[in-house]
Amino acid sequence: MSKVYLDYAATTPTDEDVIRAMTPYFGEFFGNASSQHAFGREAKKTIEDCRESMAKDIGCDPDELYFTSGATESDNWALKGYCFANSHKGRHILISAFEHHAVLNTALFLQKIGYELDLVKVTGEGIIDLEDLRSKIRPDTILISVMAVNNEIGTIQPIAEIAHIAHEHNIAFHSDGAQAVGKLYINCHEQDIDMLSISAHKFAGPKGVGALYIKKGIVLENLLHGGAQERAKRGGTTATPLIVGMAQAMRHAVQYRADHVAATTAIGEYFLTTLFSRLNGVALNGSRYQRVPDIINIRFDGRLNSALLSLMDINGYMASAGAACQAGTVEPSHVLLAMGLDEARASSSIRFSISPEVSVKDVNDLLDFICAKVPRLDKN
Amino acid sequence: MSKVYLDYAATTPTDEDVIRAMTPYFGEFFGNASSQHAFGREAKKTIEDCRESMAKDIGCDPDELYFTSGATESDNWALKGYCFANSHKGRHILISAFEHHAVLNTALFLQKIGYELDLVKVTGEGIIDLEDLRSKIRPDTILISVMAVNNEIGTIQPIAEIAHIAHEHNIAFHSDGAQAVGKLYINCHEQDIDMLSISAHKFAGPKGVGALYIKKGIVLENLLHGGAQERAKRGGTTATPLIVGMAQAMRHAVQYRADHVAATTAIGEYFLTTLFSRLNGVALNGSRYQRVPDIINIRFDGRLNSALLSLMDINGYMASAGAACQAGTVEPSHVLLAMGLDEARASSSIRFSISPEVSVKDVNDLLDFICAKVPRLDKN
Repeated sequence: MSKVYLDYAATTPTDEDVIRAMTPYFGEFFGNASSQHAFGREAKKTIEDCRESMAKDIGCDPDELYFTSGATESDNWALKGYCFANSHKGRHILISAFEHHAVLNTALFLQKIGYELDLVKVTGEGIIDLEDLRSKIRPDTILISVMAVNNEIGTIQPIAEIAHIAHEHNIAFHSDGAQAVGKLYINCHEQDIDMLSISAHKFAGPKGVGALYIKKGIVLENLLHGGAQERAKRGGTTATPLIVGMAQAMRHAVQYRADHVAATTAIGEYFLTTLFSRLNGVALNGSRYQRVPDIINIRFDGRLNSALLSLMDINGYMASAGAACQAGTVEPSHVLLAMGLDEARASSSIRFSISPEVSVKDVNDLLDFICAKVPRLDKN
Repeated sequence: MSKVYLDYAATTPTDEDVIRAMTPYFGEFFGNASSQHAFGREAKKTIEDCRESMAKDIGCDPDELYFTSGATESDNWALKGYCFANSHKGRHILISAFEHHAVLNTALFLQKIGYELDLVKVTGEGIIDLEDLRSKIRPDTILISVMAVNNEIGTIQPIAEIAHIAHEHNIAFHSDGAQAVGKLYINCHEQDIDMLSISAHKFAGPKGVGALYIKKGIVLENLLHGGAQERAKRGGTTATPLIVGMAQAMRHAVQYRADHVAATTAIGEYFLTTLFSRLNGVALNGSRYQRVPDIINIRFDGRLNSALLSLMDINGYMASAGAACQAGTVEPSHVLLAMGLDEARASSSIRFSISPEVSVKDVNDLLDFICAKVPRLDKN
């Protein structure tokens, strides 16, 4: 049985080229980038070359980019670090109601320790409600966090506009960009973002590494206190091989973004239109057009997603009910509930996330499978 | 010119075997361990096998071991997580005066936000002063953190005894074990440790991964809030390849610990005794016997360490003035100052950290070099 992976939003395989680029930095060029000797300087130079390359790729200065262990750490750092360092300005924060749990649970922690939190509504299309955002801004609001691309439904959020609104009120703006790099045009300076979280394994880089862009002038308390690494802002031995891999993967993702978008649009649209023409009672969750093409969230009205997912899995088709990070929990997706779906509809939805590796044959096989099985599934 | 690396305490090259073990998990077995499909389950099984193997290696249960990005994150999590979750019991913490900055700066952060901190004295031999520890315990003391092996001078701290003292007073005990695994006998249950931080790249594993052992019953607030990974205690996509590498490196380090100790004792003692016999005005910092054999901190009285280090570096000998994490800063080592050395003596000290890879020829060449150059160095 052939396996068809349709969960690229959960994680991607690391590119062959990226693996090849990283490998020498494990055993051969292994120096600690903080060491003051030849091997240390060699590692330091490698790290700074990567920082420069990545800064160019996302439109910021190299000294605005800090390496972390991934988007979750970056999100935690951005929110807690900003709140801890700026609580004299106020203690109110705003996030969208369908943020990733790395932002949502961090914000709830901040609420628990005395910050005030409001969730900004999202529309039925899965786009943040800017009117609601404006109405919830208070004189003591210090931070707004809204993701660039929603990880479950792929909708693109108007981050430049949110940044503009935030700055009109002297509020800092953070965006979780985990699903954006390589799919969406990102230029931190042009879009006037204050903080952006990045995760390498979402764009064919390795797991365990990411970055946080912090605009010059934005002050954060450290999240990982320790040594003087990352200009004394983030302790922990710099993971040179992973950073080399991330920089190489990002360069590739940004350079071939148009190709990636074209390929995933073609295959995704083919999947969608064929599915709609062959099966009744299916619908796309979230905006039809304001979305990245590689995340496709489909509602099979009246059918339980878990039943279909496990049937798919047994037959080699791997997709998910939502974020992998929450997998294993039985609750319906908070993203879909925030968009106004009821529990039954949320629990009948499946995320298919694709890449140019997915072939037309894969999609045809999947469509045959779905169209044969769905009508025979138990109702939910 | 051949290069002689004498900075293994800063970081180690990743073993060939470890690289070979990790590689398939980047591109081939790349699934997200939280995904509920075949690739996810495969990754999950790999992760749990690693957890089981590591738990066996350090004498704990698998579900007491949590994967992190390294010892700095583990230290931050242990200290902040314990304080945040247990502040109703008290707000006073004790750490030794010569902890790594990952513990020291985390404790200073906690002090800044309202916890009370006392530093426990260390003796001139570089061992924690247990009388001072006892005298500083208060009814509101909730946490004691003392490293297992000091990273700059290699002295072994009496962690089982500290754990015993802590528990007599219902205080939790955390130990930074970054320099201990593979060098020192570690058994979390037997030594009755409550929390232990681990870093893979100190024992020939990859950078960017580590673990925190948390004894059953010890409650911590999360440090990285987010998804439901690591039993909902640590968000962030599990870095399967790095964890595979860490488990493999730890298995090797623990299995061949006796050989490692024998080899580094032989070469280290040869270096020490020959140096003492050939050069006047040199001394070992820290206990002669209560130490791991691979960290040798030498004082060249009256000579500035930076001058000797850069001369050594130019000639291919790579050592350090102390922790790499603080390299680039000009202050004398806080470890040596805590032991009662004055600034001049602290600034004349060099850490040589070795491995079985260092040969007798390397040491002889180094000794010839040092004995020729040191007498001609400027006085400090």
